[in-house]
Amino acid sequence: MEGTMENDSLILRSDQDGIAVLTLNSPKSINALSEAMLATMSEMLDDISADRSVKAVVLRSGGNHFCAGHNLKEMTARRADVDGGFQYFQDLFAKCSAMMLRVVRLPQPVIAEVKGIATAAGCQLVASCDLAVSADDAKFATSGVNIGLFCSTPMVALARNVPRKLAMEMLLLGEFLPADRVAEMGLVNRVVPLAELEGACMDMARIIADKSPAAVKIGKRAFYEQLEMPLEQAYAFAGRTMAENMMAKDTVAGIGAFTRKEPMPEWTGE
Amino acid sequence: MEGTMENDSLILRSDQDGIAVLTLNSPKSINALSEAMLATMSEMLDDISADRSVKAVVLRSGGNHFCAGHNLKEMTARRADVDGGFQYFQDLFAKCSAMMLRVVRLPQPVIAEVKGIATAAGCQLVASCDLAVSADDAKFATSGVNIGLFCSTPMVALARNVPRKLAMEMLLLGEFLPADRVAEMGLVNRVVPLAELEGACMDMARIIADKSPAAVKIGKRAFYEQLEMPLEQAYAFAGRTMAENMMAKDTVAGIGAFTRKEPMPEWTGE
Amino acid sequence: MEGTMENDSLILRSDQDGIAVLTLNSPKSINALSEAMLATMSEMLDDISADRSVKAVVLRSGGNHFCAGHNLKEMTARRADVDGGFQYFQDLFAKCSAMMLRVVRLPQPVIAEVKGIATAAGCQLVASCDLAVSADDAKFATSGVNIGLFCSTPMVALARNVPRKLAMEMLLLGEFLPADRVAEMGLVNRVVPLAELEGACMDMARIIADKSPAAVKIGKRAFYEQLEMPLEQAYAFAGRTMAENMMAKDTVAGIGAFTRKEPMPEWTGE
Repeated sequence: MEGTMENDSLILRSDQDGIAVLTLNSPKSINALSEAMLATMSEMLDDISADRSVKAVVLRSGGNHFCAGHNLKEMTARRADVDGGFQYFQDLFAKCSAMMLRVVRLPQPVIAEVKGIATAAGCQLVASCDLAVSADDAKFATSGVNIGLFCSTPMVALARNVPRKLAMEMLLLGEFLPADRVAEMGLVNRVVPLAELEGACMDMARIIADKSPAAVKIGKRAFYEQLEMPLEQAYAFAGRTMAENMMAKDTVAGIGAFTRKEPMPEWTGE
Repeated sequence: MEGTMENDSLILRSDQDGIAVLTLNSPKSINALSEAMLATMSEMLDDISADRSVKAVVLRSGGNHFCAGHNLKEMTARRADVDGGFQYFQDLFAKCSAMMLRVVRLPQPVIAEVKGIATAAGCQLVASCDLAVSADDAKFATSGVNIGLFCSTPMVALARNVPRKLAMEMLLLGEFLPADRVAEMGLVNRVVPLAELEGACMDMARIIADKSPAAVKIGKRAFYEQLEMPLEQAYAFAGRTMAENMMAKDTVAGIGAFTRKEPMPEWTGE
Repeated sequence: MEGTMENDSLILRSDQDGIAVLTLNSPKSINALSEAMLATMSEMLDDISADRSVKAVVLRSGGNHFCAGHNLKEMTARRADVDGGFQYFQDLFAKCSAMMLRVVRLPQPVIAEVKGIATAAGCQLVASCDLAVSADDAKFATSGVNIGLFCSTPMVALARNVPRKLAMEMLLLGEFLPADRVAEMGLVNRVVPLAELEGACMDMARIIADKSPAAVKIGKRAFYEQLEMPLEQAYAFAGRTMAENMMAKDTVAGIGAFTRKEPMPEWTGE
């Protein structure tokens, strides 16, 4: 996919130097996570998952805003279903959750590049990425409570990123919080002026793309797995993981070079 | 209970516009969580739990301080029991924990309004509330360790609010921390001058009382339940919860109004 | 061990007023966690665990740096094993994890005294201590990813100290972070000028050494145990723990003195 771009899509993909930039490309809907958007995103993540040329992913947005969450018009239309839309809504939230889990389980790290607003499932998408950089004038909210729909799936990701009273504040009050505040909370890693946002994300992606993809893949997966284990079990799991990491060709070459005070080798990803 | 107040009680209750203000009313004991106080609090929380007119709760303190934790004189008197008080202490801590769990499980959000000192089980009470606002000269401690009684039940709530090394610092050193520091940690949401404390809490409560009680009730319960699940299970649970939330009358009306660009409806709580 | 010091060891131990200071004493290797260092540390922790004269531990470093993690030369030599070192690496990481768990399970609180760099398993050692104080010019990293070896065992401790996106940033980028930043994250409790570092740690240790060792021991163990339980189970466990704590001789004397407004007794540790 080097250097190509699909312009007719809901999501644009542009690859350069091992970095895949995915651009949400429905600015008129504030990049709403419609059924089509969720399907496109899931498909693209599956492609990248199998694409060994990609070392890191930047999740960018077209237009002025990151993402405003679900497409409420599309959802409201299904109120006409015989069951009032219940089965449809269950399927929709399951699809959306599966997409968020794809981000978490993607072998390559994903960096959210946030500008404008990130609300509801859009805020969840930021929380689901491994890393996030925000423009200093961006705003974050889990605002479903304002219209009678508590952000229950967004809170799964949010509550695993920030202290619980701060998550509760966002979920119960539904107010917009500025980038600086959510950075203090731990929801984003860095805050930069809008003009520097793309550069800051690409710099971060390049740093990751320069690492051994084998080590990054092993480590990212192990990170989320060990988080759900008790301490002693987590250590047993992480110890085995690290011993396996030691046997990777990249790691043999990398540690060898380090102990000989030579520059790092070209990584093979194996 | 609109506009009424029970002045002969250990806890005063005053309701206004859907907000129940509970005032700990034993300032001479620094609002100690005596047996009688725990029983009164539990009873009042059970009443509120069943009271559909209440949309949010503010937990206020009479006198100059929030709460100094257990009543050590009452406890010491039971050293005279045949078992040295062991069974009594077990029952007391179980009752206290049950009261804290009532706060967590109350359908309505609870805001701690903290002034003066909040120590030991008083600090736990802050940690157990969904949200907390503090006067800027308030002080927080889990100081049991200073007299030989580690704050083991308070730590259950504290360690789920703040990073573990900071919880350990409070528990091991037993020192008072100022409001600004515990706000950085995540134990309180906002710090305001004492003169603005009641107003800040009531403003926050009014924002919550303006939401659909159906959405708030569904969301608060789901928040604490999903926190204890692994990620994939949490998403399955939250997806079902959100689909059920979509079918609430309030939510049908709220999302309908939003998509038609109309003001939010009067919420029915259903 | 009062006043003694073993100068021929990889780790020096010096005891004073109930405080054991352990000094990592291999500055030429930047206090690398070699097999010998892990074994010495484990042995010394076992000694301290059984030593009722010790009330608190300070983990100090000789030379200019805290600890640079594993000994990569020692590990690389085992590439010559018939299995390429796999079994050796598994055993090594298991030994290292067991040492970290010894810190967590030690009855006495352990304070990390950090100067210079704390990287990889050295950063994990900071995260594994109960408390940490850092010199203001110290630097922290989980930098294994830079040489192809993701810091998978360090992340077990790191991810339980700081918000997950900030842990991911350290693990994926492998960059050094200054003391102020990791203090904001929750990895260290306090940051002081290098000239005040030893004093700050000793002050903290003295505060702990002045508490009832019975209460501290009960509380530290319960802290880590309850963290791994769901909320209701944690309360049941902590309630029993606290009732047992009430029956300790120290606690009877301490609460008695407090209610009589007398100074605290000499603690017996029982």
